[in-house]
Amino acid sequence: MRSTMQDVPLSIGDLVRYGTTVHGDAQVVTWTGGEPRRATFREVGRRAARLAHALRELGVTGDQRVATFQWNNQEHLEAYFAVPAMRAVLHTLNIRLHPAQIAYIANHAEDHVVIVDASLLPLFEPLLPRLTTVRHVIVAGGDPGGLAAEGVRVHRYEELIADRPDTFDWPSGDERDAAAMCYTSGTTGDPKGVAYSHRSIWLHSMQVCMTDGKGLRQSDSALAVVPMFHAMSWGLPYAALMVGASLLLTDRFLQPAALADMVQAERPTLAAAVPTIWQGLLQELEARPRDMSSLRNVVVGGSACPPALMQRFEELCGVAVVHAWGMTETSPLGSVANPPAGSEGEERWSYRLSQGRLPASVQARLVGDGGAEVPHDGKSVGELLVRGPWITGSYHRDPAPDKFEDGWLRTGDVGSLSPDGFLRLTDRAKDVIKSGGEWISSVELENQVMGHPAVAEAAVVAVPDPRWDERPLAAVVLAEGASADAAELRAFLADRVARWQLPERWAFIDEVPKTSVGKYDKKALRARYAEGELKVVEARD
Amino acid sequence: MRSTMQDVPLSIGDLVRYGTTVHGDAQVVTWTGGEPRRATFREVGRRAARLAHALRELGVTGDQRVATFQWNNQEHLEAYFAVPAMRAVLHTLNIRLHPAQIAYIANHAEDHVVIVDASLLPLFEPLLPRLTTVRHVIVAGGDPGGLAAEGVRVHRYEELIADRPDTFDWPSGDERDAAAMCYTSGTTGDPKGVAYSHRSIWLHSMQVCMTDGKGLRQSDSALAVVPMFHAMSWGLPYAALMVGASLLLTDRFLQPAALADMVQAERPTLAAAVPTIWQGLLQELEARPRDMSSLRNVVVGGSACPPALMQRFEELCGVAVVHAWGMTETSPLGSVANPPAGSEGEERWSYRLSQGRLPASVQARLVGDGGAEVPHDGKSVGELLVRGPWITGSYHRDPAPDKFEDGWLRTGDVGSLSPDGFLRLTDRAKDVIKSGGEWISSVELENQVMGHPAVAEAAVVAVPDPRWDERPLAAVVLAEGASADAAELRAFLADRVARWQLPERWAFIDEVPKTSVGKYDKKALRARYAEGELKVVEARD
Repeated sequence: MRSTMQDVPLSIGDLVRYGTTVHGDAQVVTWTGGEPRRATFREVGRRAARLAHALRELGVTGDQRVATFQWNNQEHLEAYFAVPAMRAVLHTLNIRLHPAQIAYIANHAEDHVVIVDASLLPLFEPLLPRLTTVRHVIVAGGDPGGLAAEGVRVHRYEELIADRPDTFDWPSGDERDAAAMCYTSGTTGDPKGVAYSHRSIWLHSMQVCMTDGKGLRQSDSALAVVPMFHAMSWGLPYAALMVGASLLLTDRFLQPAALADMVQAERPTLAAAVPTIWQGLLQELEARPRDMSSLRNVVVGGSACPPALMQRFEELCGVAVVHAWGMTETSPLGSVANPPAGSEGEERWSYRLSQGRLPASVQARLVGDGGAEVPHDGKSVGELLVRGPWITGSYHRDPAPDKFEDGWLRTGDVGSLSPDGFLRLTDRAKDVIKSGGEWISSVELENQVMGHPAVAEAAVVAVPDPRWDERPLAAVVLAEGASADAAELRAFLADRVARWQLPERWAFIDEVPKTSVGKYDKKALRARYAEGELKVVEARD
Repeated sequence: MRSTMQDVPLSIGDLVRYGTTVHGDAQVVTWTGGEPRRATFREVGRRAARLAHALRELGVTGDQRVATFQWNNQEHLEAYFAVPAMRAVLHTLNIRLHPAQIAYIANHAEDHVVIVDASLLPLFEPLLPRLTTVRHVIVAGGDPGGLAAEGVRVHRYEELIADRPDTFDWPSGDERDAAAMCYTSGTTGDPKGVAYSHRSIWLHSMQVCMTDGKGLRQSDSALAVVPMFHAMSWGLPYAALMVGASLLLTDRFLQPAALADMVQAERPTLAAAVPTIWQGLLQELEARPRDMSSLRNVVVGGSACPPALMQRFEELCGVAVVHAWGMTETSPLGSVANPPAGSEGEERWSYRLSQGRLPASVQARLVGDGGAEVPHDGKSVGELLVRGPWITGSYHRDPAPDKFEDGWLRTGDVGSLSPDGFLRLTDRAKDVIKSGGEWISSVELENQVMGHPAVAEAAVVAVPDPRWDERPLAAVVLAEGASADAAELRAFLADRVARWQLPERWAFIDEVPKTSVGKYDKKALRARYAEGELKVVEARD
């Protein structure tokens, strides 16, 4: 039997129409280092309409890709509003990738237009000749200088959108059409494109606004530290449009001192960033305190947050840091670590330190070696597979069959699921250390080593071992002025993890190599070891 | 361009699977007058699986309608879980309607099975012979007695579900399939069936859990006073399943004293009911105080809540009463009166007394006399039309073309929309008083008259007038022991509304006639006036 419900497609056009009228007074504040730039959703909506008219004229009449090469700022938000709402596809380029990767991505996505921040021209200019499908470059927030390439027209953003109508009749369409794209910056193989739909973005936005999601609401002001080119800034811009939350955008000012100033001056209520950002902010605040009292919700994701960081942040800022897990392929909101009602003390901490509870819209399975189903008992460990309306089921023009199984996404993350739906990741599938048939979590070892007062950072990777197949190698960065040797660190660990998991190989390094999004680059570390570039110290009983 | 997102249909089966495992510990408490009955979502899920197996055996193999004739209780919730999850259609019958209407509705929906509470058999028994499509009656919570009819098999609920598997492989399907039905109890014409889809219920549940919706969350315990046969108990059961909120169910104990006892004993955090329920509870609490401190969110809807009631409730219970607007046709959540950030004092009250802000998923238009579009300026008044994925676009097997326009639902409600999306209803379209080309709000007059200390209740209706076409008639119920005459009430009103709106006709009555869902039955009042049954007093200047 058919329902009698209206068949209304979920559509970013409707979202933009709603958010820029009903919530027309919501604020968009862009940090400039000096006086912040301020606009309302109403104004951003009008400029987005003008941008859409301009893009139509540049040949964006269908589902062409309009790329952005921008910081988090008002013009980037205007592209977020305009491009999907006009039924083209917003493609956020990750400015931190290697130029060859960026070129690969833009060409693979067949970007027709790129909007570039003037402040990023030094990065973009050498890139432009390699972009084979781009016909128009629009430079925002400054002068294009001598930017030029064959077959490419260069425009100034403000000139291009000037004198155009400030309304646009945002069309509707199939809710499964692509609305926005983001490529994963995986450390292996070519980058892979995820194309979000109007439907997935709408549903994901609702989840972000659910009280047990991130609880975003009209009275919030959200500091989006997480880049708008990184998994849609974790969904904050569209969720803000949905409920009328204000947005505080960092532009290029991601230095700890700038972030601390921003919070003190603009008083955001919610903030979202990866642990390294919070780590930096914390050090800044220890040195030069600021007023952080406006924050009621601090979301940390992208990688696991060390417990010590969570605790210290809470002591200093009086706000609980909430763990969330997700990835580009999951829009990204997967799970949020809101502890269950009634949990207290250590149990509560155990929930908070997990990756969080998966919501109804994200189904999960665990699969072990050989594809066997792993029970959700909170102990058994397997690779996490997920399914749901905002989870990718393929990559754009890239079959990658090993990433999917029966329509489920293989996340490449390894961990356990408790009966009450909490995810506890122990590792990336490729980082897990397979020692004599048992799995050792590299992340668990890292967290324990980092608990030693002399250790600033630690990364643990698998290295080949003739007897055990693989064994852990611990690469340690000592805190400034501190000293500790391998024997001491191994003894410290011995009280905390199983004996057979203790690393025999230790290396003291100046810095852990990191990927473009700030995660430990373990591939690089393993390569350095393989090439004999690491000075390894042996420590055994 | 197609997105790469998984094509996962929204499905009640997935919701039940999720809620009864991940949130398996959530509580379902059914009030009994004595020791409450307690079960977990896990247990309810197992019993729902057993019920589904039993229904399969009774011929529910496709989209047959399984009706309920039940109070809010655990067995009713089991039907809520089982019937849509097995891809049949749950049809909640309104026990408060006239038997002829109930028979019309059950026959029109072609109900195959009815689940009946034993406590409702006295109401149901005379009805049964009139139900032409029903083949099975399942009696829950007691003995069927001598219940019998030709061609109908009568079952005992517990016997029927005993010895069946307590898991069921809930199937998936098209998300636009009907999942549940509810007929409107309109005061004119035949009742009309609204069929909710798996999609609409899922999206609506997310809205209920959005912080700016009702903010339902895992740590909540929701007292669903609003009947499960009345617009799906405002969406609370499925929303609870989505986030694992516990449910407190009243069964037949809707008396103010029982409700007060329930809140004190079971400590719900959220409660939802129509104003008359809160009015009764308030009087009970004035007489015999109870501990209401567990409540953090009290939702009032169904009809406008008198400001005095909101204020007194807050003084007495220390919790803000939140206005919400909706109707069977809107699933029902339309708008919720969360005042915008920063609003204070009178402005804040004005927001709180409105019907609330419409969310992104509910688009709104206002249409005036002759179909002209009315601006959203907070002043201009028109009939409200709505559109969205959980708004009905038709009635089940009933064309009713005058209820729809270009796919939008004509709500029959009259009011204004502010630029910031707040709805302020002044009347039902059919209750508005059209006096000399101007519209007079009957509700506005009622609220003002009810502000007089001698008035307990007041209903205002349009009556024919030779000069002005229509004029208001005020029907007043005086408070016990109080006295006031028409001249005094008119003088009181004169300070509060425009002179030309003052009623000339007054009637003092013992009780305002009400519909089955507790709303003023203005049709009945107009009929009484037309038939000369009201003793009318004239009052003029």
